[in-house]
Amino acid sequence: MRLFDTKPRGVPFATGADVPLTLRAQGSFFIGGRDIRSDALSAVPAYAPSGTVVVDQVYVRFAVPAAVGGPPLVLVHGCCLSGQAWETTPDGRPGWDEMFLRAGFPVYAVDQAWRGRSGAGIAPAANGDGPLPTVFSAGREDAWTVFRIGPRFPEPYPDTLFPVDAVGELWKSMVPDFFYALPTPNPTVPALSALARRLGGAVLVSHSQAGLYPFQAAEAARDGIAALVALEPAALPDPAGDLSAFRDLPVLIVYGDHVAASPRWAPRLALARAFVAAANAAGGRAELMSLPERGIRGNSHMLMQDRNSDVVAELVAAWIGRERPHGAGGAAGRPIGGA
Amino acid sequence: MRLFDTKPRGVPFATGADVPLTLRAQGSFFIGGRDIRSDALSAVPAYAPSGTVVVDQVYVRFAVPAAVGGPPLVLVHGCCLSGQAWETTPDGRPGWDEMFLRAGFPVYAVDQAWRGRSGAGIAPAANGDGPLPTVFSAGREDAWTVFRIGPRFPEPYPDTLFPVDAVGELWKSMVPDFFYALPTPNPTVPALSALARRLGGAVLVSHSQAGLYPFQAAEAARDGIAALVALEPAALPDPAGDLSAFRDLPVLIVYGDHVAASPRWAPRLALARAFVAAANAAGGRAELMSLPERGIRGNSHMLMQDRNSDVVAELVAAWIGRERPHGAGGAAGRPIGGA
Repeated sequence: MRLFDTKPRGVPFATGADVPLTLRAQGSFFIGGRDIRSDALSAVPAYAPSGTVVVDQVYVRFAVPAAVGGPPLVLVHGCCLSGQAWETTPDGRPGWDEMFLRAGFPVYAVDQAWRGRSGAGIAPAANGDGPLPTVFSAGREDAWTVFRIGPRFPEPYPDTLFPVDAVGELWKSMVPDFFYALPTPNPTVPALSALARRLGGAVLVSHSQAGLYPFQAAEAARDGIAALVALEPAALPDPAGDLSAFRDLPVLIVYGDHVAASPRWAPRLALARAFVAAANAAGGRAELMSLPERGIRGNSHMLMQDRNSDVVAELVAAWIGRERPHGAGGAAGRPIGGA
Repeated sequence: MRLFDTKPRGVPFATGADVPLTLRAQGSFFIGGRDIRSDALSAVPAYAPSGTVVVDQVYVRFAVPAAVGGPPLVLVHGCCLSGQAWETTPDGRPGWDEMFLRAGFPVYAVDQAWRGRSGAGIAPAANGDGPLPTVFSAGREDAWTVFRIGPRFPEPYPDTLFPVDAVGELWKSMVPDFFYALPTPNPTVPALSALARRLGGAVLVSHSQAGLYPFQAAEAARDGIAALVALEPAALPDPAGDLSAFRDLPVLIVYGDHVAASPRWAPRLALARAFVAAANAAGGRAELMSLPERGIRGNSHMLMQDRNSDVVAELVAAWIGRERPHGAGGAAGRPIGGA
């Protein structure tokens, strides 16, 4: 399989503003979910207090290029963000969703359960039915260092590739995060499993907080999972544990720059290295890609929004092409929709 | 201006699953927003309690067809929903976003402020900083009659055009609604004004709860507003008030079926008739389109998801074509993005 057979000649990976984007299908649907009943859905007269709502469902926005040239990608955003993180970058360049679409990959971007367009089950508790679920927002002063834009707010790293002038758009993209209110595995995990089964050979691409989810999905069942790509995962399976679930599964972990100076991220990169070694010792096909070790300096935690997001996307796409993940292929990109 | 010059020959308005969709641009951005500072953003150790977040911003997802043949449409969803309401229908047909795109209209679908991907300012209050903002969820038993799918849950009207077999997908699309926590005008209103100014001649299309917003935007300033289309607005400007803001402004209000039997909607339809009469007496160009009076029976409140959503879309598009709204035109569909 050559992934880029369908790429228009002479068009760089990231570009396309002047080249039309031709889709076979696009739209959205939901996956997963469970019903809950409450007598505290509403305290306003216009809506009844008692009734049934669904929670834990996962919103999926998808697009399938007219000429499919790669396996379907499932994009799972990280902390405090929604699937918007993969769309237009803060400074207005095409997001990874469009970049991969233009390269021939069907793209399925989710909102984690209880996030964004995947409705949160907040109303019952807010109206007196049970304790309020834990929710937090990341302040920009905190996110600045968590996302490794710079050593301290508002000072950027001199070589940062994050589009700092447009960082206000990143702050606007942040949403309340109910991560700590949800069970383990996060309801997003079974939804990813179900989505992969429906797609029949998907590459699960995660970022940060969501990093562990695709691994948990693969541990539950490998059906429909062709490969895993984890951008700076916040957590990974225990390298000392049973890693037989990952035998022969292509796994790519990507890390950006300025990690050693980060008390938050340095141990996570060390964990990633240990996981890769242990997974491969157990028959895995795991690879750690440190961008600075390849001579690419200045990437923040927001690899898909940095000014070289096209370069990182191309590296990931090339890895998928090299790995030719078992079970994946152009034919796997079936457009799906409805319930 | 002929709106449909660019429509592929022989392709019905709603169809397209087998015809590629070609876009000049697509993506997302945010508009509006204000900073708030709090010492209660987080109660979890991994994120700092103190910091600054932005609220009231509005998420805008857009797509511009390769061949623009109409003015840009701004789609504003109603109660308990997100911009997803305009995407794929519950039973998997193209949503109005895709239908209008295929007909040549640039489409900009928002999430109301504090809804979906437009982050809500819930975390500070949830962590002890001030009273909890009013939030509700609509239970399906309530929504069934509010949306006029049937006279009582779970009984549908015998002639309903809502895709009842797929109603579970509608329930999954519902999100917590902070409408009653927000000031008047809703922060979505100035965002609509700013978006219309940037687009330079937009048709603001609202549904239900959002019905009043475009009218409030037009009252604030007509800049960039070419026309208003209100699908079953829950509120409208007072017909006894000063309606000079709507002089020469094309306004279309659309209502579906089974309204007379609804204590919620019958008075609103009466208000709509009174508004149209009063607006026209004040020099307006307003029209009320009752689908049953045109012989189209069985529409629910969810006109854009009913099985004849293509027919309703075509009626709206034809009205836009007839009205040739002042200031609107194909050239107005400038792709925009970034901050």
